[in-house]
Amino acid sequence: MAFRSGRHFLQIPGPTNVPDRILRAIDRPLIDHRGPEFVALTEQLLEGLKKVFKTSGPVVVFPTSGSGGWEAALVNTLSPGDRILMFDQGFFANGWQAVAERHGLQVEALAQDWRCAVDAGELADKLAADEQHSYRAVLVVHNETSTGVANDIGAIRAALDQTGHPALLLVDTVSSLASIDYRHDEWGVDVTVAGSQKGLMLPPGLSFNAVSEKALTAAETAGLSRSYWDWRPMLEANAVGFFPYTPATNLLYGLHESLAMLLEEGLDSVFARHARLGEATRRAVVAWGLEVYALEPAAVSNSLTAVIVPEGHDADALRATILDRFDMSLGTGLGKLKGKVFRIGHLGDFNELMLAGTLCGVEMGLAAAAVPFEPGGVQAALEYLGA
Amino acid sequence: MAFRSGRHFLQIPGPTNVPDRILRAIDRPLIDHRGPEFVALTEQLLEGLKKVFKTSGPVVVFPTSGSGGWEAALVNTLSPGDRILMFDQGFFANGWQAVAERHGLQVEALAQDWRCAVDAGELADKLAADEQHSYRAVLVVHNETSTGVANDIGAIRAALDQTGHPALLLVDTVSSLASIDYRHDEWGVDVTVAGSQKGLMLPPGLSFNAVSEKALTAAETAGLSRSYWDWRPMLEANAVGFFPYTPATNLLYGLHESLAMLLEEGLDSVFARHARLGEATRRAVVAWGLEVYALEPAAVSNSLTAVIVPEGHDADALRATILDRFDMSLGTGLGKLKGKVFRIGHLGDFNELMLAGTLCGVEMGLAAAAVPFEPGGVQAALEYLGA
Amino acid sequence: MAFRSGRHFLQIPGPTNVPDRILRAIDRPLIDHRGPEFVALTEQLLEGLKKVFKTSGPVVVFPTSGSGGWEAALVNTLSPGDRILMFDQGFFANGWQAVAERHGLQVEALAQDWRCAVDAGELADKLAADEQHSYRAVLVVHNETSTGVANDIGAIRAALDQTGHPALLLVDTVSSLASIDYRHDEWGVDVTVAGSQKGLMLPPGLSFNAVSEKALTAAETAGLSRSYWDWRPMLEANAVGFFPYTPATNLLYGLHESLAMLLEEGLDSVFARHARLGEATRRAVVAWGLEVYALEPAAVSNSLTAVIVPEGHDADALRATILDRFDMSLGTGLGKLKGKVFRIGHLGDFNELMLAGTLCGVEMGLAAAAVPFEPGGVQAALEYLGA
Amino acid sequence: MAFRSGRHFLQIPGPTNVPDRILRAIDRPLIDHRGPEFVALTEQLLEGLKKVFKTSGPVVVFPTSGSGGWEAALVNTLSPGDRILMFDQGFFANGWQAVAERHGLQVEALAQDWRCAVDAGELADKLAADEQHSYRAVLVVHNETSTGVANDIGAIRAALDQTGHPALLLVDTVSSLASIDYRHDEWGVDVTVAGSQKGLMLPPGLSFNAVSEKALTAAETAGLSRSYWDWRPMLEANAVGFFPYTPATNLLYGLHESLAMLLEEGLDSVFARHARLGEATRRAVVAWGLEVYALEPAAVSNSLTAVIVPEGHDADALRATILDRFDMSLGTGLGKLKGKVFRIGHLGDFNELMLAGTLCGVEMGLAAAAVPFEPGGVQAALEYLGA
Repeated sequence: MAFRSGRHFLQIPGPTNVPDRILRAIDRPLIDHRGPEFVALTEQLLEGLKKVFKTSGPVVVFPTSGSGGWEAALVNTLSPGDRILMFDQGFFANGWQAVAERHGLQVEALAQDWRCAVDAGELADKLAADEQHSYRAVLVVHNETSTGVANDIGAIRAALDQTGHPALLLVDTVSSLASIDYRHDEWGVDVTVAGSQKGLMLPPGLSFNAVSEKALTAAETAGLSRSYWDWRPMLEANAVGFFPYTPATNLLYGLHESLAMLLEEGLDSVFARHARLGEATRRAVVAWGLEVYALEPAAVSNSLTAVIVPEGHDADALRATILDRFDMSLGTGLGKLKGKVFRIGHLGDFNELMLAGTLCGVEMGLAAAAVPFEPGGVQAALEYLGA
Repeated sequence: MAFRSGRHFLQIPGPTNVPDRILRAIDRPLIDHRGPEFVALTEQLLEGLKKVFKTSGPVVVFPTSGSGGWEAALVNTLSPGDRILMFDQGFFANGWQAVAERHGLQVEALAQDWRCAVDAGELADKLAADEQHSYRAVLVVHNETSTGVANDIGAIRAALDQTGHPALLLVDTVSSLASIDYRHDEWGVDVTVAGSQKGLMLPPGLSFNAVSEKALTAAETAGLSRSYWDWRPMLEANAVGFFPYTPATNLLYGLHESLAMLLEEGLDSVFARHARLGEATRRAVVAWGLEVYALEPAAVSNSLTAVIVPEGHDADALRATILDRFDMSLGTGLGKLKGKVFRIGHLGDFNELMLAGTLCGVEMGLAAAAVPFEPGGVQAALEYLGA
Repeated sequence: MAFRSGRHFLQIPGPTNVPDRILRAIDRPLIDHRGPEFVALTEQLLEGLKKVFKTSGPVVVFPTSGSGGWEAALVNTLSPGDRILMFDQGFFANGWQAVAERHGLQVEALAQDWRCAVDAGELADKLAADEQHSYRAVLVVHNETSTGVANDIGAIRAALDQTGHPALLLVDTVSSLASIDYRHDEWGVDVTVAGSQKGLMLPPGLSFNAVSEKALTAAETAGLSRSYWDWRPMLEANAVGFFPYTPATNLLYGLHESLAMLLEEGLDSVFARHARLGEATRRAVVAWGLEVYALEPAAVSNSLTAVIVPEGHDADALRATILDRFDMSLGTGLGKLKGKVFRIGHLGDFNELMLAGTLCGVEMGLAAAAVPFEPGGVQAALEYLGA
Repeated sequence: MAFRSGRHFLQIPGPTNVPDRILRAIDRPLIDHRGPEFVALTEQLLEGLKKVFKTSGPVVVFPTSGSGGWEAALVNTLSPGDRILMFDQGFFANGWQAVAERHGLQVEALAQDWRCAVDAGELADKLAADEQHSYRAVLVVHNETSTGVANDIGAIRAALDQTGHPALLLVDTVSSLASIDYRHDEWGVDVTVAGSQKGLMLPPGLSFNAVSEKALTAAETAGLSRSYWDWRPMLEANAVGFFPYTPATNLLYGLHESLAMLLEEGLDSVFARHARLGEATRRAVVAWGLEVYALEPAAVSNSLTAVIVPEGHDADALRATILDRFDMSLGTGLGKLKGKVFRIGHLGDFNELMLAGTLCGVEMGLAAAAVPFEPGGVQAALEYLGA
């Protein structure tokens, strides 16, 4: 590969740019995972995570990727043949559905426009019609990483509440946690799935399940077989500061630093920063005369923006040009969006000038790849950011 | 915790001392896991791993701990209710058995003295008696980390061959791979399970399955449900340089360095070094008038030594004294060995003087904890190492 | 200090952004500076440095800052009372002059406009008039870091040659080496002074003297007292791979990596990249309706740009606003330029998008600080960079 | 070079083993050395240093090696032709003398046995005889790194006091500071010279001058020319949090961590630890039947031990054997001790088991190199350390 001077712009919507403080933290010698120093570490991590998930209940940490977190949420709470209800929201919702199906769950996915938020009203109708309470769980992706659409989890909760439906609520926050406001307890979520490599600013390799009392009760009788993902031995071991199998110590060091950084900045400041950078990005897209994939202003994601490439142009060719010419990685279109959109990640350890450089790269890249656009997107973003 | 000057001696049998070259490698910025640079990395890793497992077949890399690797080996090859045969070899064999049972497999564990190698003859008898070939798999731990007993996998293979039994052979090499000679192909192993945090000198967080053709065929029809652990999408993605879900990039950087180091030293030199350091350790134990837990000279482990503490003394009290006085972590007795043995890890990135310091710590610790012993263990080790 | 998310933009004209490869290199355990491994390191460094200075003669490495390199150049070649000729070129030229005067040298500094290159013709006149050859040395700063004016060292050499004047030629390349083409041998320079923290992309702490045969001869009789700076014991020790006193090992590790990076990119590519980024910067300044401090197109620096702030505005107030609002450090005006200019560093480990982010920060900062300017500077830079 | 597994034992008496905390600290991105964050760093460093030197006066930090600190101490306080009095104590005292002589100082070095502490009585006699107070300064090395002899600086002070001699007292503490108790103010030292790479546990590259009021007064009239080493601009800049030239930022990050570590451990604990490890080393040497070079029990160094190799054997051949066989670096014999002694460094970030490993390496090395010795040195050390 040719030598590239300067810093690569990693503007995929995760893994995100890992800050130096975290990289240095994971670069520390191992300690005995059964010793007293480890107990202190575990306790600090588990307390800190509660603040980030906004829960008073337990948060389980698995050495795995986000997909493992999805699987854990399902196998701890459900039984073979259980019916679950979800939305055809995007590539990652589809992926979670596939995990469920591979484990013998019956999934009903409500059709909808990927460009729009999920329809809590339609969900309420479905739930109301389910008089036998045959649905055991509702699965929603808070922030679809493939589309840049963010959903209103409070409204989903309300749909469950107003219909009095007892289904469990399982939510994927892989690309929203620690970037977009999220409230596990307040929204009555039963299992929140998250990953390390987005808003938590860590390398990939950890996934999380925040777990409600109701979910813990469900785990008592859930019939899907499980061992690695089983919450029970995990919670037992965690209670005394340990893990039931060797934990990914160095990533836990990083998590310790991540939590410290998030609390130093303050979660509200973190969310405000993401909102500001998201808005600047969208203004640039509009000024370029391009279309943000997310249609509804209320449902745009503040952690990433999917941008539609004009008909007749290939988003991946544009991405390749930008990588080659300007050493920046952007997110590819996933699933049915392949070639049609590119995605700009603006989450994690990120600031105004990093975003400005990113948007400059997109603007120059559009020109270099001969994608039709109006210059001025960067200018529009700067006017917003500089105001 | 009180300030401790100098380097902690992490002499548990894993996680092992991660060399600086690897710590620095994992402390590198993320790259796009769907980009061209990643493809090159993946290809190098998958080729390098074959050399370490001594196989021409695929090696699957999971972001997980060793327990995840156990689970993957089972769910890819077996169906609910399948019978498997294994030995009551030690704490980790018991652990693997528990994983199997949680997934509804019927496990028959042959009773035996934990201090001895598994009895291939007894296995052959069992297999010969199984005329319907009802056992679908034989599970063996190559090197039991809880006992310090190493087993002859070639003899196990021979037992299968001489009885013409078609059972799959699944082997745990978590604490032997890259420390003690191991030959996936030559020994006809179907699935070899390994972890990152022992002989590979990495932090925990990766687990491996080396997979035979026969195992791949079994995976076609295996009935246990699986998604995260499924080899098939993994092998498909690996074939073009990717992973089906976000891989643990920074640990993969470390793996790249680990493979480079192992090949620089040469596997034969790695094994010889471990043999030499293991022998020195055992000579020290004998000179102290203590007993190595492993009874048979042919079955001693070269990656760790479990040492029996005299009746009336508590191995964990000794360990606590050594940690407190000399800042060294030793391995605890696991399961039924709790309090009865301590374990000295002498594997991974390790050399003569590190071992010498370790043995000095044990010798001083025995005195400090008032465990009866003969001085001179260190002397005996030095005479061997210095010769 | 308030928490700042994302990466700080360190756009002072040095120390520059140290690339991760170099930071990781300096974060390595020490080795014996009198052992065989060190000999190999020293040899590689001294060979590599010759390529960067474009010399076949020795390059001396001091553990010191750039000011130490200035002092070394003087005390090795001159005697108390010696006359030297230089230009009043800028803050750093003045600084070098002060060093010379503190050591009892008689300095004549030719007055000139700091915004212009030094006048080789005037120098030639001076030298021609000096029939007794009373000037022992001519001192020039290749690239004045305080003004962003780059000078033609070849023309200076020609002035010496055409007048047949035997004065030594001492050149400061602190902010040009490895950024702007420089040729120690071809330009007949006797001592080239450089530092680690600019184009070499290292932390500060090393300074260099590339030394001609003529300078070595001068050192035989130079009367200024010296010990630490003495080239002779240094060259003697270097010849066998060592240093006369403990070298700054970890910075030498970094230098090893720096040389590797420069040779991977290729010096011509390095220079072309700096030229391109410098030109983009100047186009932005012009489009803003501001003035580049360097007046002559042939004498603009490609490693930094000093920008004049309109009358009635304070450059340092602007810098403070930019630091506060956009987390970017720019260079202050030095000496008589205090408050009148700010300086944008665009050298070292740097690329198009980093520059784009930088210029966006300046453009937003000008607005935020209410400095009058025309928007569009970023746009102008992007048009140039994207073409 | 052949691959070496495990950690190198760097047991030269400096540079010492740099702890990971410090290595990680120096591996951080640069900041603006003229910005507000730097001011805070500078202030913390200068305050912390006072505690380590036990002074209420200023401590000057130079980017240089220890030799630079020697030179700085001289050129700031003395004038050409000044007479100074010192001892022929060892290789480093001789080195300091050479620096003085190169700057035109007249040095009188009192002859003495290198194996013994300097004789304060003889010094008192000399001073008493100097009725004209022609000696301007007395130079002493607190802990001679070449001999392992430590001196009583309080007694030197007393010699000056009892004779009422006004000479300045300049002391080298390069290998004692932060290892052996040292009291700049209490002992009335005028300039204390130290370096970064020994007890401060940093890489080489910084040197220090702690400066008394009297020394500052001397600096007003000192006639030696100086620029880089000049305390005055340094103290002026330090007063507002800056440095007169670009400081070695990353080593300053390391210094910040070093000071934190020393204060966490507590200086008294640091000294007690060194005393304990030094005593253990000497007991080993005696048990081997070898001779510690330092003759007097009251004057043994706790930071290193020089060991005499029996007549007819070459210390460097022994060192080469130990490096080759056991991957440990020991200190060479310097100057007239070349080949006659080897030196064991036991200072800095060091503990019992690291020392035990070190002594094991020496004991095995003596055997491997066929140097006559009695086995049992390690045993003797363990008995002491384990008690």
